[in-house]
Amino acid sequence: MSAVDFESFVRELARLSGEAILPFFRTAIGVENKAGLGHFDPVTEGDRAGEAVMRQMIKRTFPDHGIIGEEYGEENAGAENVWILDPIDGTKAFIAGIPVWGTLIGLARHGAPVFGMMHQPFIGERFWGDGAGARYEGPAGNRSLMVRPCEGLEAATIMTTSPRLFDSETRGRFDAVEARCRTYRYGADCYAYCMLAAGHVDLVVEAGLKPYDIVALVPIIEGAGGIVTTWDGGPASAGGRIVAAGDRRVHEQALAILNA
Amino acid sequence: MSAVDFESFVRELARLSGEAILPFFRTAIGVENKAGLGHFDPVTEGDRAGEAVMRQMIKRTFPDHGIIGEEYGEENAGAENVWILDPIDGTKAFIAGIPVWGTLIGLARHGAPVFGMMHQPFIGERFWGDGAGARYEGPAGNRSLMVRPCEGLEAATIMTTSPRLFDSETRGRFDAVEARCRTYRYGADCYAYCMLAAGHVDLVVEAGLKPYDIVALVPIIEGAGGIVTTWDGGPASAGGRIVAAGDRRVHEQALAILNA
Repeated sequence: MSAVDFESFVRELARLSGEAILPFFRTAIGVENKAGLGHFDPVTEGDRAGEAVMRQMIKRTFPDHGIIGEEYGEENAGAENVWILDPIDGTKAFIAGIPVWGTLIGLARHGAPVFGMMHQPFIGERFWGDGAGARYEGPAGNRSLMVRPCEGLEAATIMTTSPRLFDSETRGRFDAVEARCRTYRYGADCYAYCMLAAGHVDLVVEAGLKPYDIVALVPIIEGAGGIVTTWDGGPASAGGRIVAAGDRRVHEQALAILNA
Repeated sequence: MSAVDFESFVRELARLSGEAILPFFRTAIGVENKAGLGHFDPVTEGDRAGEAVMRQMIKRTFPDHGIIGEEYGEENAGAENVWILDPIDGTKAFIAGIPVWGTLIGLARHGAPVFGMMHQPFIGERFWGDGAGARYEGPAGNRSLMVRPCEGLEAATIMTTSPRLFDSETRGRFDAVEARCRTYRYGADCYAYCMLAAGHVDLVVEAGLKPYDIVALVPIIEGAGGIVTTWDGGPASAGGRIVAAGDRRVHEQALAILNA
């Protein structure tokens, strides 16, 4: 597949999954349940609709590719090219009506992330990268993504989805890193990593991530000049405890505390 | 002023403030500082630009009205009609590039909130109300806002901007309420109250709010059928410790714990 074809293909995946998911965002659940829909769960319905349409298109276009998705599991996961899909990353935000969830579309080759896109269909913006470069398109224009320099934790803005998502052991380490940072912000899921790639945030520390929570974000972060690893410095693509930084100095200082 | 004129006027305030603020959102601060702009602070610049354009338009159109704004203080604050403005509510979100900040435009008559709008110019959505009704316009359509029923805390989704914003005394009380709730979500500022009005969230508990953080939201919450007071059940418009609920049962249960 040529580079141009590939970009059109991923755009189409994003467009179709967005169309499938949006009808389930900001639906008035309480009211609709009363109308007899029973245990209608919009985030699960949206997740399934978004993933189904992406799986269908991938299988039709690249029948030899594998797929790993949050909702429908693994198919041909040992293939050379494997798509890793999370139709709605940020389910709590989605349920609360806050538009900081995103659709994550990642491609791994021989197990290594080679392309990723985060698409937010409600706002109409997408962030994508291939490890060598990263770009943005949406209300803020059409531009390259680039991390910002940051000399150390004392100057850093740290993000995490919620401190409550850490267990008792990892919570203490996260708190120790956060205490060194200049400022913090909670509640962002995939947006935290995209804002790091865009140069608005310096550090993201999380734990308990699944591969589909992070694989698509790795080529965006790295393409923007950032660094993302597990807390012990290994590849991020298997998920687990993740630390991403825009500046290597911040990454090193965070790792020192997270592994103390 | 007629009802129609008034609505056009507020729309114009929102449009102009959005145009003034947006150039400062998601600007690459690090890079621009290197170019010699010195201590360029986009959120302060955006706040000032947004408030200045709204003040100018209010003074030209309603010269006898008072104005209270976050950036430029009070003008004629004893007038019958007083506008209460917060150009960027959610400054941490703004700085981090996360589009869950909003422009708050409130009008109080004889000290009581009679109209409020929350405008998010990046997403292009607005929530507004007059205490008797509330409406939404944006990517999710054009519709009335209505809170959802919720039988009690055990079934409730609670939101707060950050647990860290409470002091040691109020933090314990917030934690006690949150522990009773079904689920929580952090990091939303004015969006928390708007999502309550839209029926996606059941309870918002915060402390340390300024009048300009809440006055514009009161007519939206109440217009959607919700209830918003201080923790001791008094009027919310003076700010301070605020509790908003979509259902009176949730509000009563939260108050009982917050005042225990």
